[in-house]
Amino acid sequence: MSKINMGNFFEDFSIGQKIVHPLPRTISEGDVSLYIAFTGSRFALHSSDVVAKEMGYDKRPIDDILMFHLTFGKSVQDISLNAIANLGYAEMAFPNPVYVGDTVSMTSTVIGLKENSNGKSGVVYVHSIGVNQNGAVVLDFKRWVMVHKKDHSTLSGVNEVPTFAKTTPISQINIPTIKCVNTDSTGGKYFFEDYIEGERLDHPEGITVDNSDHTLATKLYQNNAKVHFNDHMMKSTPMGQRLMYGGIIISMARAISFNGLQNAQWVCAINSGAHANPTYAGDTIYAYTEILEKIEVNRNDIGLLRVRTIGLKNQTAKETPNPKGEDGKYLPNVVLDLDYTIVIPKKVTEKK
Amino acid sequence: MSKINMGNFFEDFSIGQKIVHPLPRTISEGDVSLYIAFTGSRFALHSSDVVAKEMGYDKRPIDDILMFHLTFGKSVQDISLNAIANLGYAEMAFPNPVYVGDTVSMTSTVIGLKENSNGKSGVVYVHSIGVNQNGAVVLDFKRWVMVHKKDHSTLSGVNEVPTFAKTTPISQINIPTIKCVNTDSTGGKYFFEDYIEGERLDHPEGITVDNSDHTLATKLYQNNAKVHFNDHMMKSTPMGQRLMYGGIIISMARAISFNGLQNAQWVCAINSGAHANPTYAGDTIYAYTEILEKIEVNRNDIGLLRVRTIGLKNQTAKETPNPKGEDGKYLPNVVLDLDYTIVIPKKVTEKK
Amino acid sequence: MSKINMGNFFEDFSIGQKIVHPLPRTISEGDVSLYIAFTGSRFALHSSDVVAKEMGYDKRPIDDILMFHLTFGKSVQDISLNAIANLGYAEMAFPNPVYVGDTVSMTSTVIGLKENSNGKSGVVYVHSIGVNQNGAVVLDFKRWVMVHKKDHSTLSGVNEVPTFAKTTPISQINIPTIKCVNTDSTGGKYFFEDYIEGERLDHPEGITVDNSDHTLATKLYQNNAKVHFNDHMMKSTPMGQRLMYGGIIISMARAISFNGLQNAQWVCAINSGAHANPTYAGDTIYAYTEILEKIEVNRNDIGLLRVRTIGLKNQTAKETPNPKGEDGKYLPNVVLDLDYTIVIPKKVTEKK
Repeated sequence: MSKINMGNFFEDFSIGQKIVHPLPRTISEGDVSLYIAFTGSRFALHSSDVVAKEMGYDKRPIDDILMFHLTFGKSVQDISLNAIANLGYAEMAFPNPVYVGDTVSMTSTVIGLKENSNGKSGVVYVHSIGVNQNGAVVLDFKRWVMVHKKDHSTLSGVNEVPTFAKTTPISQINIPTIKCVNTDSTGGKYFFEDYIEGERLDHPEGITVDNSDHTLATKLYQNNAKVHFNDHMMKSTPMGQRLMYGGIIISMARAISFNGLQNAQWVCAINSGAHANPTYAGDTIYAYTEILEKIEVNRNDIGLLRVRTIGLKNQTAKETPNPKGEDGKYLPNVVLDLDYTIVIPKKVTEKK
Repeated sequence: MSKINMGNFFEDFSIGQKIVHPLPRTISEGDVSLYIAFTGSRFALHSSDVVAKEMGYDKRPIDDILMFHLTFGKSVQDISLNAIANLGYAEMAFPNPVYVGDTVSMTSTVIGLKENSNGKSGVVYVHSIGVNQNGAVVLDFKRWVMVHKKDHSTLSGVNEVPTFAKTTPISQINIPTIKCVNTDSTGGKYFFEDYIEGERLDHPEGITVDNSDHTLATKLYQNNAKVHFNDHMMKSTPMGQRLMYGGIIISMARAISFNGLQNAQWVCAINSGAHANPTYAGDTIYAYTEILEKIEVNRNDIGLLRVRTIGLKNQTAKETPNPKGEDGKYLPNVVLDLDYTIVIPKKVTEKK
Repeated sequence: MSKINMGNFFEDFSIGQKIVHPLPRTISEGDVSLYIAFTGSRFALHSSDVVAKEMGYDKRPIDDILMFHLTFGKSVQDISLNAIANLGYAEMAFPNPVYVGDTVSMTSTVIGLKENSNGKSGVVYVHSIGVNQNGAVVLDFKRWVMVHKKDHSTLSGVNEVPTFAKTTPISQINIPTIKCVNTDSTGGKYFFEDYIEGERLDHPEGITVDNSDHTLATKLYQNNAKVHFNDHMMKSTPMGQRLMYGGIIISMARAISFNGLQNAQWVCAINSGAHANPTYAGDTIYAYTEILEKIEVNRNDIGLLRVRTIGLKNQTAKETPNPKGEDGKYLPNVVLDLDYTIVIPKKVTEKK
């Protein structure tokens, strides 16, 4: 039998099956610097130990989206190596901060299976949990992918589809009590109280992504989905070139959202997301953010903002009144529609 | 009012105004490795703890130009985001070494304002001081930029222009006493005594810079000037493409100057500089250096060399007898004219 | 006399001459992250402190090939800056592990010289030894390069050619006793006992290398051979573009060999190697591995596999039954033929 791991096919999954993803990853200062180089991210909490200490941390925590990529990347070879499409994710929570030196790993449980009627493929639903070296949960989410079947001639008829909450239930916010926010350091003077439901922030920056950028990032995350870094193979597909990993766009959009959300330095949950159109090397990413909902938690220092960030390619936020056309479909320059919840301090924390 | 920071315009500045730049930055080992990857820099003091200890340091300090980029980058969003042109800098000093783990931040004071007679723009002069987490000054300089006015119809007539010293006054040299220079480690056998005023060093190496290289670097420095990484926007300008951040060229020229100046591992001051022509992805950078002046300080172990490094694109040093034509203007392949002062040990420090 | 180091020519070498290569290099977390970003390498021992401790290490050691590049890079400016061709290497051993914080340096001794009959060039044979800051040998190899002569009119007639062992003698294996291999962490379930001499592993992945990727890597390794990063110069050569450093291909092939050799996380020796054809930006690298020999050492926990990895460009392993044509010459898509010895744990170490 071949020793080569060709990934799992639809028939390899069963309800309740638990998969331990290999390659626990120790996060280093090198990963942090590379993430800033990839995205230009400027959130002060992740850039400065001095700022982190002033706010109430022992040292600067890792950017949540970087942690997501390093943890999520582990699951690709078991779950989505033979994916036809990554269909969606839901109920994604970031329960605990992660620091340089921490080692993250992930396990998944199969929670749903739905064979397609053509017999050629099926949808696999998994619940994935990432932990640090002490077992504390750092990432918790559900996702579903369409994968190939090995045998197209036999139908199992399996059809167990889980349901998901529309937004991630917020059970715990393990962020230290915020002692002080120095707006001279964070670069933004707006707090929880300043935002209004329905408000829209047109972030002015656009960042172009090139082939070396996005392939270096995807390899750093040890995400081995071939479509992202095998140009030879992709040339014979309709795309004709390497497809950018969707997580790159989440990172770029989040980094671009700094201008207007400077003090919202934590991602608490991702409620849902769509990669509306593919992105390729040479595309310039823009973004805008809508404030969907202001959420009070049982804390005096912080509140939550549920927001929607629209990622765009080669079209500015100002040029994009709406991400969808009259037919309800995403317009061709829209590349990301992300519904997520961020933490932002209240005015009481402002350094006088 | 919009929460988006669109940067400052000419009317937003006033003489004596103090600006605290956001985003204090903790410097990490990742930044150091990336800097070597960007430039190929080979100065041994910054590459090796063993060499640094032998010379008299506790550990390897950060390359001065890397420190400059990480500190300077902070000021872009407040000073030069709406700059029409970065006109010059003067009296730049690097008073104290910086190490991995240090956090640098910067403040600027407006020291001059000169409205242009067309009413559309003006020149802003600032004095910027970068400090580490203990308040020790690590970077001190003056620069002037031309920025847009918001209101073109009203003239204020402001015209306060500071004067600058031709070379940076050297007030303090906070370099440890150099115990020992092992030329087997540094790769160069020449000391202060070996250089001659008027001598010219044609550095043989040329290094090509690509889009991913220079945009990764500029993003790492959190320099958010759009011209450097927004290709979509730049395509509609006469340049037609992303303009390389001028600091990239300073870094490349300094790294290339290694061959001939191997023991001059410290930048003490930048006296003046001109970015004579723009550089773009695909350009190959060459450089040569002239020894302008040998300066004795009150130390037995080190002396100073005031030097001029000419950075070139797509033309070797040997092919460039003079950076300027008969009309006194820079020739089209000249991209940098940098007058700066470096520290170099004396022969007494040579390891026998 | 010029202070510029133009490298050594054939006449500059003499039998028995010892060369201390400059630039001792402290290895950092930044180097490790960049190496993962360059290669996508997934060997768990080098990615995770948790895995390393479970196996019997204090912390994760550096990938052997990264250590090779950082150490080897030092010798370029003294040995091969004026090389016409890097002809070969032999008896390469990796005797001791290297960790973040270690400082590596290298010395070479000239062990052979052979003048070419045309009087224009000659072959230099050196024995190079890399050590860490405590003097422990971390890299030991012999290589030979063809270099230019300065004086084409005088023949010295020197012809002292050393002989080399066909495979590196294995004298010491300074790997800690492997306590435990958790195949859930390493991602591979095969041990020493599972491999068969003559077995072939067609690794499915292909990774495209771009200009920024390979030049960033070569600069990080402080390898200053101009052919790799001076596009301006290379445009006037028959190649017409930058040539990729051969070490990049060794790294890519080794990283790609993960799929099928997940538990073989140490390179113990490189017996011989050929860079069969040049590689350029845009090439996609594939690889397959043959198990040449199973070698028992005097240990219960580990054994050795002598393997041959063939690196390919723009052609999959499955499409390549043989690297050479009927004429015995390498086929045009073959870029690497590497004979090396790796360490792999025995089944007794498997975590139950």
